[in-house]
Amino acid sequence: LNVEDLNRAAAQLQASHPPAIANTLEAFPWERRLQIWQLLAPQTKGAVLIELYEEVQDGLIAESVPDDLVKAVSGLDIDDLADLYKRLPKEVRTAVLQTMDEQRRQRFEAVSRYPNNTAGGLMDVDAIAVRGDATLDAVLRYLRRTRRQQGELPEHMDAVIVVDRASQYMGILSLSDLVSLAENRIVSEVMNTEIKPIPAMTSAKKVARLFEDYDLLSAPVVDEDGKLIGRITVDDVVDVIREEADHTLMSTAGLEEESDMFAPIIPSAKRRAIWLGVNLVNAFIAAWVIGQFENSIEQLVALAVLMPIVASMGGIAGTQTLTLVTRGIALDQVGPSNIGRVLRKELGVISVNALLFALTVAAMGIIWYQNINLGLVFASALTINLLNGAMAGTIIPFALHKLGIDPALAGGVVLMATTDVLGFFTFLGLATFFLL
Amino acid sequence: LNVEDLNRAAAQLQASHPPAIANTLEAFPWERRLQIWQLLAPQTKGAVLIELYEEVQDGLIAESVPDDLVKAVSGLDIDDLADLYKRLPKEVRTAVLQTMDEQRRQRFEAVSRYPNNTAGGLMDVDAIAVRGDATLDAVLRYLRRTRRQQGELPEHMDAVIVVDRASQYMGILSLSDLVSLAENRIVSEVMNTEIKPIPAMTSAKKVARLFEDYDLLSAPVVDEDGKLIGRITVDDVVDVIREEADHTLMSTAGLEEESDMFAPIIPSAKRRAIWLGVNLVNAFIAAWVIGQFENSIEQLVALAVLMPIVASMGGIAGTQTLTLVTRGIALDQVGPSNIGRVLRKELGVISVNALLFALTVAAMGIIWYQNINLGLVFASALTINLLNGAMAGTIIPFALHKLGIDPALAGGVVLMATTDVLGFFTFLGLATFFLL
Repeated sequence: LNVEDLNRAAAQLQASHPPAIANTLEAFPWERRLQIWQLLAPQTKGAVLIELYEEVQDGLIAESVPDDLVKAVSGLDIDDLADLYKRLPKEVRTAVLQTMDEQRRQRFEAVSRYPNNTAGGLMDVDAIAVRGDATLDAVLRYLRRTRRQQGELPEHMDAVIVVDRASQYMGILSLSDLVSLAENRIVSEVMNTEIKPIPAMTSAKKVARLFEDYDLLSAPVVDEDGKLIGRITVDDVVDVIREEADHTLMSTAGLEEESDMFAPIIPSAKRRAIWLGVNLVNAFIAAWVIGQFENSIEQLVALAVLMPIVASMGGIAGTQTLTLVTRGIALDQVGPSNIGRVLRKELGVISVNALLFALTVAAMGIIWYQNINLGLVFASALTINLLNGAMAGTIIPFALHKLGIDPALAGGVVLMATTDVLGFFTFLGLATFFLL
Repeated sequence: LNVEDLNRAAAQLQASHPPAIANTLEAFPWERRLQIWQLLAPQTKGAVLIELYEEVQDGLIAESVPDDLVKAVSGLDIDDLADLYKRLPKEVRTAVLQTMDEQRRQRFEAVSRYPNNTAGGLMDVDAIAVRGDATLDAVLRYLRRTRRQQGELPEHMDAVIVVDRASQYMGILSLSDLVSLAENRIVSEVMNTEIKPIPAMTSAKKVARLFEDYDLLSAPVVDEDGKLIGRITVDDVVDVIREEADHTLMSTAGLEEESDMFAPIIPSAKRRAIWLGVNLVNAFIAAWVIGQFENSIEQLVALAVLMPIVASMGGIAGTQTLTLVTRGIALDQVGPSNIGRVLRKELGVISVNALLFALTVAAMGIIWYQNINLGLVFASALTINLLNGAMAGTIIPFALHKLGIDPALAGGVVLMATTDVLGFFTFLGLATFFLL
């Protein structure tokens, strides 16, 4: 990239929306990222930073001058700043706290009190609250006055929150009702009391489920005493849902969802080595099982040719069941009360397919090796390992979940170990017993 | 379940929110589902139906009396009804159309004109539009009048849409601005013109991305002439995001995201047979490769013991790269301009790990079989197959995407075929050349 290109790119980027800039930055390797980063205005930097994967955030923060960072993050929304705060260098944190006025600092402390992945960590603390005994007219006047004084109302405001004298949550007055009902109505008569307030320590995952099930645009957050402390808006919930999905998908390959595509090689290699190492142990266990049957393989080398088929087909069948059951667990649709039925259904499905594929492989084995008994053993072992796959695919995620381990992360590894070991053992064992 | 239990369950369910009822229904096998289904009131049935997986919808629709179905779906929102419509029996469709008044029928036809997975299919057609030359006061009076006449305003309304005399989209007037700015302001002076209208044929996926990037609560939808035809609200977008994530995850195991956990056995088995069949073909190709080296295995049976390790480690390394690259493609972060860099980085990462694991397996091979040359061949083959995995994991999703095939669906299968075939070939080939 020469200077002219860079300037053109910078002009183009500055005109872009921060999420688009973030997406572009993530698509570039580090040396270009830094070139682009340096061309962004400080406020843009802040808005871009919060959209990046954490691994990319860390890299850019490390490469930025403290003064620049203070300027970049000082203008952020409180909840975004709270997310980013712990990733900033100490001197930047101190400087950021000093730039805050009293109100902002109080709000920041209110959000920072709760972990990121809770309702408290997700909330905005700029909720507009009105009293239940006010008239709609009074609320309208209050909103106009607030707007005149502060220049703006909170972002994504679709409702005001109704509280009593003690700041206890009472209900929600939607702006849609506010603009369309008679101005002399009393707030408490027209407010929506069906929306239950969300306790601050509710998990982000549960918050997302509530927003989905009740089609919410925003929801009030209360502390342990039922006192209103903020509101969650749906745009933050959308991010939670996306991150959750990303987490599940990346977990199945032993990756972290905040991974940077262009992370430096050594740390990337380190993290992936763990996953490769776990799988190497599994592979050696399976190899050890094969090793127990060396004599059989020496006598009938066809066993070595066919055994990977038995192992891999069990793994495939198991993965299908595992994926379905893991989704069911995530949706609370699979539990102790119906795991037995799920297992029976999965075994039923795989039995039908086992019949089909056993006939196929028996025929192929017989044609290939002109050995009927080999074909029968091959088919029997395949049938057993398909059933084994369905069983392991049901029980493993259920058991992992019971043990508090994320089935999306560990399920695949444990399943493949099971279907490999049992697949090799069944095929080689049956062959040794019946053929030799 | 006896009658008493059923009645208690029914009372409990009726009091529940439809998404919760849907979730419960999906967790039950078919015979219980039908028992519960029959206990639900018709309106509840409609609200529950739209929350179910399509496969479950179809089953319950097939088991319902037409009259009941008409009652169940007649009260649904237009966009929900349009989603469900094509799944209903013909007589129910006719009856539903007949229950509609003229306005509802027109709206229904407007939504039905567009495929489900487009902005047009997602939109609500009850958008409230106001003229740019009106005052805020006039808008407020209009909204109050509409509310008096119709009893309600559209759900999830956070803004009214501003159009000109020819119904051309001009901008958005948020209710937040409407309630807080002076009543004598002119709409066109205070409206937000930054929100671009979404053409009706925009894909649902792209709509979701727009909502995420711009933190939208709602967005206007226009036809090919720029005429306002509806609005999309964020609650429908949340469903799109969830379904998209579900689709990706289920695809990686060759499953459909609308799969019912308790689908009847024969159709389930049929669908899964395709995936198992594809994998069986792959496994036989890999077996054929092994078959070419039967003589080598007969001479040195250790090859049969160690070869699955080489194949599976390549698969694991490849899956990690594949997952990262597939995510990058979905986010438009991987394309022709940087695929070379991604490949170089992935090869860099795997080279570091190849060194580590080659040393490990060489040591283990030598200790196990007291054969230094075998250890060296084992390590070399593992190194080559790890590099192969990283290369295949980068190139396969990129190539599939270019060919218009979903990398999430086909990537894993093609990758495993590659790493198995090349893993067996490399190890057995090197062994034949250097050891025998």
